[in-house]
Amino acid sequence: MSERFKAPRGFRDFPPEVMILRRSVMSKVVSVFERYGFDPLDTPVLEYWETLAGKYGEEAEGKLIWRFTDSWSGREYALRYDLTVPLARFIASRRDIPLPFKRYHIGPVWRHEEPQRGRYREFYQCDADIVGSPYPEADAEILNLTVDLLRELGFSNFKVRVNDRRLLSGVFEEELGIGNPLPVYRVIDKLDKIGLEGVRGGLLKLGLGDQIVERILSIAELRGPIESLEPICSRYSLNQRVREACTHLGKTFNLLDRPEYIYFDMSLVRGLDYYTGPILEAVLDKPSVGSVAGGGRYDNLIGLFTGTQVPATGVSLGIERIIDAGLELGILNIDKKTVTEVQVIVLDWSLLEYAWSITRKLREAGLKVRIDLARSSEEAQRRKARRLNIPILAFIGRTELETSTLTIYNTITSERTTVKLEDASETIKKMLKTIPN
Amino acid sequence: MSERFKAPRGFRDFPPEVMILRRSVMSKVVSVFERYGFDPLDTPVLEYWETLAGKYGEEAEGKLIWRFTDSWSGREYALRYDLTVPLARFIASRRDIPLPFKRYHIGPVWRHEEPQRGRYREFYQCDADIVGSPYPEADAEILNLTVDLLRELGFSNFKVRVNDRRLLSGVFEEELGIGNPLPVYRVIDKLDKIGLEGVRGGLLKLGLGDQIVERILSIAELRGPIESLEPICSRYSLNQRVREACTHLGKTFNLLDRPEYIYFDMSLVRGLDYYTGPILEAVLDKPSVGSVAGGGRYDNLIGLFTGTQVPATGVSLGIERIIDAGLELGILNIDKKTVTEVQVIVLDWSLLEYAWSITRKLREAGLKVRIDLARSSEEAQRRKARRLNIPILAFIGRTELETSTLTIYNTITSERTTVKLEDASETIKKMLKTIPN
Repeated sequence: MSERFKAPRGFRDFPPEVMILRRSVMSKVVSVFERYGFDPLDTPVLEYWETLAGKYGEEAEGKLIWRFTDSWSGREYALRYDLTVPLARFIASRRDIPLPFKRYHIGPVWRHEEPQRGRYREFYQCDADIVGSPYPEADAEILNLTVDLLRELGFSNFKVRVNDRRLLSGVFEEELGIGNPLPVYRVIDKLDKIGLEGVRGGLLKLGLGDQIVERILSIAELRGPIESLEPICSRYSLNQRVREACTHLGKTFNLLDRPEYIYFDMSLVRGLDYYTGPILEAVLDKPSVGSVAGGGRYDNLIGLFTGTQVPATGVSLGIERIIDAGLELGILNIDKKTVTEVQVIVLDWSLLEYAWSITRKLREAGLKVRIDLARSSEEAQRRKARRLNIPILAFIGRTELETSTLTIYNTITSERTTVKLEDASETIKKMLKTIPN
Repeated sequence: MSERFKAPRGFRDFPPEVMILRRSVMSKVVSVFERYGFDPLDTPVLEYWETLAGKYGEEAEGKLIWRFTDSWSGREYALRYDLTVPLARFIASRRDIPLPFKRYHIGPVWRHEEPQRGRYREFYQCDADIVGSPYPEADAEILNLTVDLLRELGFSNFKVRVNDRRLLSGVFEEELGIGNPLPVYRVIDKLDKIGLEGVRGGLLKLGLGDQIVERILSIAELRGPIESLEPICSRYSLNQRVREACTHLGKTFNLLDRPEYIYFDMSLVRGLDYYTGPILEAVLDKPSVGSVAGGGRYDNLIGLFTGTQVPATGVSLGIERIIDAGLELGILNIDKKTVTEVQVIVLDWSLLEYAWSITRKLREAGLKVRIDLARSSEEAQRRKARRLNIPILAFIGRTELETSTLTIYNTITSERTTVKLEDASETIKKMLKTIPN
């Protein structure tokens, strides 16, 4: 038997109680996306390998992308690695789409990682992107959206860290006088994980002198409320890239709906190669699950497909971590095991056809109803309903048949009532309204 | 450039207008599934190859399954071919799940077909299955569900063809005296496509004698309203398998909510190997898109994983064909290009921050609102809103700022009204209620 029973390693089955939770979380996410006027888009699970090649950097492309050769055609395919590159390919294929184009996309992506707690090979992303606007308004909308998403999901203690790739490169150009500050970025990006001493060690290991290391550390430590942007802008105001970043971020910050959630943070780098302007990352105060959203501006990615620059900015919500954190904080729960609202309990199986017709009537009234399909005893029917936490039981026996009534039992309040058939669905709906979801 | 722009052959991007339609269709499907007390389940896109092997028959496994070797681990994986075998594997992995277990699953499956009009390599299925009930009640619920689904989606001229695998094998055992009637099945399965003469030719080609061929034809032609089951049950009442099928189908038919949609049809076979009892297939009177739903009882499939028999029955809705047919019949349309309800039109960009705050207020009231992110002229803002059929325009200029008002334009009725800011969202919501979806 062994693995014949199992989903592949790093992949998960989602049983009903988990799916009910996931659907409720995702429907909240959709409602926020749509309030901002984002429209749904879907792209294939597979892309040609050449569509993904050259977009993500070495580690992703050499190891993390699920890539395979189709043995019939000899073509190389890949499971999509994120939802951003497929968006760029889509935009390139439909040059007639009016810009700015605002889309959301909720769907699984695949990474060939070593599975571990909280890290899967198949997981969902929830992305919203604005294509075609180079303006701070677009970045501000993405920041406001990110804050609204987390609040709507019930989180209150979080911050959204913000930086700008141009600020990073301008400042390090001035400080280091080198063109490729990538190795330095990689070290300071870990500030939150490894602390100041860790970063100091990492920078020294790069072969940098003590003085430069201290200057870099003092820059990386610049973080705090959005006003913290000001001093760095003044200090490096002669640098063209810094000026661009400061103007852009300043205008973005002016349009924040809830600036109290936004933190300027010079140690924020973000791994992906394609970012060009403002970048963002949301983190919860606790539990420490890493970032729960990330994104930024990527003005050159779509141009890799089209040949001309098409500016874009967006955010990706880490829905798996959000669910894990929400469960840990008690904001979310998996108590709901079925969507079923009413279990019809058949007291006498010779009445099956009658019970069946009542079940149909309740369903036609819009209720979610089960009737036992295994001819179980009354006790077994009740036991199964209890196991699934079905809130309402509707009993059908000879008395109910003869008096055209239904005996309704509210399992939450233990209230029992016998009502005329024609009032049954209304009575049940009233009961359901008093039951917390 | 060439294929760098394209989704892989046989795969599709779904732009917003198509996604809006698909989401609306699928949400109707979900509401019917849930009314019957089916709960959501999701399984991975990939399965180990050995999970799928030996379940579907030769053509599927030799050619149609997307199968590949992971070059890191050397393991063979496959993209799921349907949603039924993953369900069977899931059941086998969770022996603690209370039975009967009712789940629905909506998701893509992959087939390595030659793409052609209406046939894709990636397409969605919508499945509902009942695991753990051997009784006709379960099959009746599947039939009633199928009828309700199609009616809920707006179809009225369709029939659900029903047969039983035991009836087929019993009758052909009697008539042919052979143990393996599969080649005969395959020919009569095509009756609807190739007509009586085609079937006659196909049977003769199998080497069968004239007399036997005529007898088979007269059996395959037995179809019509559910009462048509009766004569065949009487004629072959001595055969054990026929008796089982007739009892089972008879009880199933007794529980039909709308028997007028159900047709007994001795020529219905269905391709997949795993069916063991009642089988069904829904077809529209027009357009002729082939079957739009199919399913049946498969009492032995789960046992291939568990070693013990677990009865099951279900239906799979062919959502892609249903959408194609619905569009052709005018039941469905792709007129809705955005979810956005309100476009804020900024008449003076120096008022951006004010317009931004109004936009936020409308969103907080639950409206789906866009504000231009490209600093376009009034004319360009209106043109873009028109292209997307956004129903409401909300104008913000100096007058509106000074008088704390909003000028609202209903693009459907051409009604224009200026309202106090605090009444704006209520006014818009009332307007939206009068606009067809």
